[in-house]
Amino acid sequence: MNADETAKAIKDMEIRGAGRIARAAAEALSDTASKDHKNIEAMKKEIIRSKDVLTASRPTAVSLYNAVQYTLKGFDDCKSVKEAKELLIKNSKEFVTLSNEAVKKIGIMGSRRIKDNSVILTHCNSSAALQCIKQAHRDGKKIKVYATESRPWRQGILTVNELAKEGIDVTMIIDSAVRTVMKKIDIVLVGADTITSNGSVVNKIGTSQVALAANEARVPFVVCSETYKISPQSMYGDMVTIEERNNDEIVKKNEISENVKIFNPVFDSTPPKYIDGIITEIGIINPGSVYEIMIKQFGTTEFR
Amino acid sequence: MNADETAKAIKDMEIRGAGRIARAAAEALSDTASKDHKNIEAMKKEIIRSKDVLTASRPTAVSLYNAVQYTLKGFDDCKSVKEAKELLIKNSKEFVTLSNEAVKKIGIMGSRRIKDNSVILTHCNSSAALQCIKQAHRDGKKIKVYATESRPWRQGILTVNELAKEGIDVTMIIDSAVRTVMKKIDIVLVGADTITSNGSVVNKIGTSQVALAANEARVPFVVCSETYKISPQSMYGDMVTIEERNNDEIVKKNEISENVKIFNPVFDSTPPKYIDGIITEIGIINPGSVYEIMIKQFGTTEFR
Amino acid sequence: MNADETAKAIKDMEIRGAGRIARAAAEALSDTASKDHKNIEAMKKEIIRSKDVLTASRPTAVSLYNAVQYTLKGFDDCKSVKEAKELLIKNSKEFVTLSNEAVKKIGIMGSRRIKDNSVILTHCNSSAALQCIKQAHRDGKKIKVYATESRPWRQGILTVNELAKEGIDVTMIIDSAVRTVMKKIDIVLVGADTITSNGSVVNKIGTSQVALAANEARVPFVVCSETYKISPQSMYGDMVTIEERNNDEIVKKNEISENVKIFNPVFDSTPPKYIDGIITEIGIINPGSVYEIMIKQFGTTEFR
Amino acid sequence: MNADETAKAIKDMEIRGAGRIARAAAEALSDTASKDHKNIEAMKKEIIRSKDVLTASRPTAVSLYNAVQYTLKGFDDCKSVKEAKELLIKNSKEFVTLSNEAVKKIGIMGSRRIKDNSVILTHCNSSAALQCIKQAHRDGKKIKVYATESRPWRQGILTVNELAKEGIDVTMIIDSAVRTVMKKIDIVLVGADTITSNGSVVNKIGTSQVALAANEARVPFVVCSETYKISPQSMYGDMVTIEERNNDEIVKKNEISENVKIFNPVFDSTPPKYIDGIITEIGIINPGSVYEIMIKQFGTTEFR
Amino acid sequence: MNADETAKAIKDMEIRGAGRIARAAAEALSDTASKDHKNIEAMKKEIIRSKDVLTASRPTAVSLYNAVQYTLKGFDDCKSVKEAKELLIKNSKEFVTLSNEAVKKIGIMGSRRIKDNSVILTHCNSSAALQCIKQAHRDGKKIKVYATESRPWRQGILTVNELAKEGIDVTMIIDSAVRTVMKKIDIVLVGADTITSNGSVVNKIGTSQVALAANEARVPFVVCSETYKISPQSMYGDMVTIEERNNDEIVKKNEISENVKIFNPVFDSTPPKYIDGIITEIGIINPGSVYEIMIKQFGTTEFR
Amino acid sequence: MNADETAKAIKDMEIRGAGRIARAAAEALSDTASKDHKNIEAMKKEIIRSKDVLTASRPTAVSLYNAVQYTLKGFDDCKSVKEAKELLIKNSKEFVTLSNEAVKKIGIMGSRRIKDNSVILTHCNSSAALQCIKQAHRDGKKIKVYATESRPWRQGILTVNELAKEGIDVTMIIDSAVRTVMKKIDIVLVGADTITSNGSVVNKIGTSQVALAANEARVPFVVCSETYKISPQSMYGDMVTIEERNNDEIVKKNEISENVKIFNPVFDSTPPKYIDGIITEIGIINPGSVYEIMIKQFGTTEFR
Repeated sequence: MNADETAKAIKDMEIRGAGRIARAAAEALSDTASKDHKNIEAMKKEIIRSKDVLTASRPTAVSLYNAVQYTLKGFDDCKSVKEAKELLIKNSKEFVTLSNEAVKKIGIMGSRRIKDNSVILTHCNSSAALQCIKQAHRDGKKIKVYATESRPWRQGILTVNELAKEGIDVTMIIDSAVRTVMKKIDIVLVGADTITSNGSVVNKIGTSQVALAANEARVPFVVCSETYKISPQSMYGDMVTIEERNNDEIVKKNEISENVKIFNPVFDSTPPKYIDGIITEIGIINPGSVYEIMIKQFGTTEFR
Repeated sequence: MNADETAKAIKDMEIRGAGRIARAAAEALSDTASKDHKNIEAMKKEIIRSKDVLTASRPTAVSLYNAVQYTLKGFDDCKSVKEAKELLIKNSKEFVTLSNEAVKKIGIMGSRRIKDNSVILTHCNSSAALQCIKQAHRDGKKIKVYATESRPWRQGILTVNELAKEGIDVTMIIDSAVRTVMKKIDIVLVGADTITSNGSVVNKIGTSQVALAANEARVPFVVCSETYKISPQSMYGDMVTIEERNNDEIVKKNEISENVKIFNPVFDSTPPKYIDGIITEIGIINPGSVYEIMIKQFGTTEFR
Repeated sequence: MNADETAKAIKDMEIRGAGRIARAAAEALSDTASKDHKNIEAMKKEIIRSKDVLTASRPTAVSLYNAVQYTLKGFDDCKSVKEAKELLIKNSKEFVTLSNEAVKKIGIMGSRRIKDNSVILTHCNSSAALQCIKQAHRDGKKIKVYATESRPWRQGILTVNELAKEGIDVTMIIDSAVRTVMKKIDIVLVGADTITSNGSVVNKIGTSQVALAANEARVPFVVCSETYKISPQSMYGDMVTIEERNNDEIVKKNEISENVKIFNPVFDSTPPKYIDGIITEIGIINPGSVYEIMIKQFGTTEFR
Repeated sequence: MNADETAKAIKDMEIRGAGRIARAAAEALSDTASKDHKNIEAMKKEIIRSKDVLTASRPTAVSLYNAVQYTLKGFDDCKSVKEAKELLIKNSKEFVTLSNEAVKKIGIMGSRRIKDNSVILTHCNSSAALQCIKQAHRDGKKIKVYATESRPWRQGILTVNELAKEGIDVTMIIDSAVRTVMKKIDIVLVGADTITSNGSVVNKIGTSQVALAANEARVPFVVCSETYKISPQSMYGDMVTIEERNNDEIVKKNEISENVKIFNPVFDSTPPKYIDGIITEIGIINPGSVYEIMIKQFGTTEFR
Repeated sequence: MNADETAKAIKDMEIRGAGRIARAAAEALSDTASKDHKNIEAMKKEIIRSKDVLTASRPTAVSLYNAVQYTLKGFDDCKSVKEAKELLIKNSKEFVTLSNEAVKKIGIMGSRRIKDNSVILTHCNSSAALQCIKQAHRDGKKIKVYATESRPWRQGILTVNELAKEGIDVTMIIDSAVRTVMKKIDIVLVGADTITSNGSVVNKIGTSQVALAANEARVPFVVCSETYKISPQSMYGDMVTIEERNNDEIVKKNEISENVKIFNPVFDSTPPKYIDGIITEIGIINPGSVYEIMIKQFGTTEFR
Repeated sequence: MNADETAKAIKDMEIRGAGRIARAAAEALSDTASKDHKNIEAMKKEIIRSKDVLTASRPTAVSLYNAVQYTLKGFDDCKSVKEAKELLIKNSKEFVTLSNEAVKKIGIMGSRRIKDNSVILTHCNSSAALQCIKQAHRDGKKIKVYATESRPWRQGILTVNELAKEGIDVTMIIDSAVRTVMKKIDIVLVGADTITSNGSVVNKIGTSQVALAANEARVPFVVCSETYKISPQSMYGDMVTIEERNNDEIVKKNEISENVKIFNPVFDSTPPKYIDGIITEIGIINPGSVYEIMIKQFGTTEFR
């Protein structure tokens, strides 16, 4: 798919999920690169156009931005079309492979952190977190999982069904019951939408409450995240925008008086002090190490 | 209504709500007392029968137990039918008046604790907590209220409609958004189902998470409760039974795989260290004073 | 001095300090009582007038209010002038004696809590707290004291001079240096302006910061206070008004731009969780016991 | 046994253990009272001599002091030998019964606080705490107990043998392993040597570390104690003396260089903020209620 | 200005302020380098002399030390005068530019962290922290600022006047009122004097109390600091010396008894656990990343 | 000694202690390298055999693994026997020197962190921690040390004798007395057995309790550790195995009933939030920097 088609598919929600969006963008840039180009100047122009079209398709997605950055690493210094073409195709493939392998690796590492006979709590529906749980089950560990309903979208239903299908012992609770069950939990595993340079984790609304309750009961709170969820923009102070969604996700019109307001934020931010470790495809880190990983993975970005 | 009719109405859920149950039981005992009795022995027998019928109608309701205890205070020492009749009718009336006045007094005290331009958070649908909020509004204070949805029954919808009807500025949030809004909150007001001798407050599931988040952000967490919510049984170690309800309150059968379990506790317990004050009709107390209030209100009970 | 003269002297600041105001009011009521009265009705009228004049002379002083309440304890039930006269004179004398003895007793108890070779921190200029320190010194204990400057009025200067005069080793620090010295401190001793029914202590601005720093370093934080600093009004929710004083206590007009605002609160409120004990003349209590002491000392007051 | 013989037996360690000492003293006073006395003055003289002999036999034992106080309650107001004799014999019997019943009642209450399938941690060898555990076992609850070694005297060996004899599943750990096992623990039960008026609990060295680790992991920390462990002396500020014992309890002479010092305190003090409840024979209380229980049990004592 | 003149000007306080000192030293080394040098050996000798003269002019200033280190980066490996001259002039210019740009960049990043309608607290008079506030104001954000008096030098007066001049809504408070206003604060911004390798921030006395109060109320505490405030010496354990200043900064001689001591430390140390982020010119970091930034900015230094 | 002999000596406990094992392994590989080898393929085979023999001799020792890794750094890329031989001999020597110097450097840095007149607490018998204490003593600082008994092996006896021999003022306490003495402590210094990628420190059982008590009392808790205690395996999630030892280390058979179980873990894990700094031979770091140090010291390891 070329860049314009890919951008459209992202906009139209045909391609969705942080990982899929990222991989599609990397492949679209590879597609642009593999076209015929008169000279390096013409190629640079075309690549920049593709890049702009792609990043504009979902401006707040860190994973998309990072996929593009990764694919274009070293592109500015290319002197010939040949060199640039080879570089971008190589980068693109690398990113796709990295992305595909990342969740798998995280699952293996996460499983190692889960002891036999553990009780696990998860919130929402993170593929990286669920991969850890499923891997532990496949590794023959006897586990029991509590999964939150995750209002308003109730992704907890996806989670419990996905785990039950694997034959895992899973129990669903409402979001308000997290502190009640926390005393039985051995480890909390959640995903991440965005990770900032100071080690905060932005994730599904309610995550920071789970972290708070875990911290109160000395339960390890572990984030499972590919490194391309790290936001280089946060390095220079950009706030992570926390989307607010429609009221009708929470109540139907006729249920409430018209004067009642609804506040429906999609994400919240968990401070590093409540995070015991972040499992990434390049290792388990302390939130204090995010800045370094950021530079290691994306290079030092220009101050904007 | 006589004791048997009252007991039936309680069982059939025609009379419900901690306060109404309590007052009905007090009145039923007054009714039994006011009947003709051959002698004091016969009267005692009949009163004990009424008492047993009433307390059996909802064995876990502390408010019902306390209403009966209150009405029968001093009854054992009565030497004549006349004396006993007068005592029970007086006690019954006193209890009903006390109960009716209690919420009103709590509202007045609560309003005094709410400063002008305050932002208040409440959870579930406590008439004592809402009375404080409504009284503050009536006292001309400019207030803004956040109310949780309170899954699974979603009593938050009752709360927001009740407050909106009074013209109060009210915003509904999902239970997972409590920590997100907590930074804007000036005071949290919640009700109580049961208060134990060491100062713990048992209330709607999620209350202890709200308390935890309030404590983290230095927001006063205040419980509004009539004293007959205090459980004398807890003095001698009886656990407060936390009812678990049906699965279909949380998910419909077809939504989840049949292997998925549901854990649906109705209440949770908030430890005294997270409670800044309990507003009762006899004053605002520290949770450390519950034992004394218990003895002051119900007398020293026998070790059982 | 009669009630009118006393009230005037309080208003004119000729009589000041929580203790002196309280004793003067008790004596004025005794004076009114000892006059000739036609009958009990006339006497009651006159006493109530005196009471109103006195309490109006400084409406926010808890100690004044409590002195009046103490003196009038049981007065309503008096049937004859003789009975009432005797009661009020007795009550008044009792209160004055109690007040005079209270600081002395607190000093003795406080000294017992100070180990030999202790380092003590105090804030502002509390006579009860300083009495403990001086008593420990007189009891032959080797002590070292850190005293804060206590901006804006700098009562720390009074404190260090008062202690140096006794031959006590005393060091003055600025208010910002409290956390720096806290690691060397064995016990913090401060006074109280007002104590509320849930165990909070309202005292000179900065006290709650001292408590916070003490709590962080596991240093016992002890409040020294006569029981008539307890506010019965707080029982029913009345807020303790925190006086805001003039700007020129902090800066001179010419020092700052005219657009700069000044916020100059006189007191702050320390929550019970940071208070290890309150030394009163009737014993050392947990802040959780204030409600009971309140009822014990002042009787159950009517709901207002 | 008369007072002199009893005092000697206490001194000679023939009678030991807080409870046995207390009961022996009460019985000795009853013995003195039941002698023939010329008149009330002579009797008072004799009783006071007995009291002095008894309290001097172990001056630091709160339980002994309280037994004597209890037995002499009301004695000062006695007008005749007969009245006094009857009173003291009655008081003495009451105390002994109370004491005997107290541990049993605490056991029943404690068992109610232990859920089925619980894991319990205990420290040292408290008969009240062990009574709770044994009662829970007798009540058919499936429990597992961790018991610390409790260096230097290693009373943990007594504890594990006592529990194993009852057929309870018990595991011994060294004192340093408390935090490691704490994550598996559902409730901590310990005894008390002395309880002070502000709610602190003085108990076997290491208890406060157990409390700290329990608090960190949200594990309820519960103290099991008869009310005569409460120290009325602490009300007026008297420090609880923490005995330091001989070096050879810790090391043998030849094990260490002669320049090495040993510090061997017997008790430590756990602050009220780490105590979730105190189970006494008159109910489960918050540490904030100790002052009131003290006055209720021992009467208001004179300021000394 | 040559190195000797510069060193004298620093000693004589003609050049002061961490930034100005640093830049002057870098320029002085450039001046030395640009002189004529016979050969590389002679040049090295001369440069080392300049370096020693400069660093001796204010031995405790981290910023001066770092400016010199920066300018001499790579110098040891130079083989010719030409190479060395070019390197040092380039390094010097780079440092000066970096330094000038750093505060500006920090201001831009800081402004991004300040939401519209925020209330900000600042302590003392940090140009980096004030730059953030002023930038936010210039970016059109509606803000309100609380600034502490910052005894003893009262730099708060400079701060409020500087902000008021920009038209910013600013309120001054005494240092003891920090905890009182903290509940209204959205973000705390302070500067740094020195940052150590483990992430502690040494800054104006009182800073750690502000951090403690911010942490208690879940208010983000953010440090604004150029990277040359990081102390490479701390890497190998050197303590940051906390200067103690004269008594007369706190009291006048005649105000206090001659036996009173004064303790007047200039700085305190805020532990990393209370710091939510450090805004540097190369990005916002977690205090856990200081060691890496140190090596990145200054190179690995020899163990001394 | 060749690789087989070395492996045997390690297995037989003739060579023991993390440092000695590590150095012996490095030297054994150097020995293998310095043998005659036909060609590079043959040499690689032989080296790999040696490596396998050595690492199998104590599979859980991180220091052994790291010594081997360090010695083989760059070996895979070697093209000739000569190149490989030189590299391995150089690497081996470097490691041994590094190891020998590391404790010495840590001692110097640690001494800098110890102020004059400090009171230090240490647990177990860490040579790195003791080196800091002895260095401070040699640097003329007046210090006092508390050392725990460290049940069950009682290494505290080694510690106190070692320090007493140097003339240091040392006091031994039982492990349960840590919280009691903590109020007098200025700094805690302990060693490490293993450090994980997220900054946790695995060390002698009881260490995490000491850290918890230090944190409660605001006492700096500092870990002294050579970098080769860092576990690269932990980067990818491998759990540090906590060895459980024999029962008879705790009790003799005849002391306890045969039904009593013993749980005897050798190590515990201290979370990064309780660690104020880790003193390594390459500087003092925040636990948040461990991941970076790991990569810096050992290179990026393959995902396993």
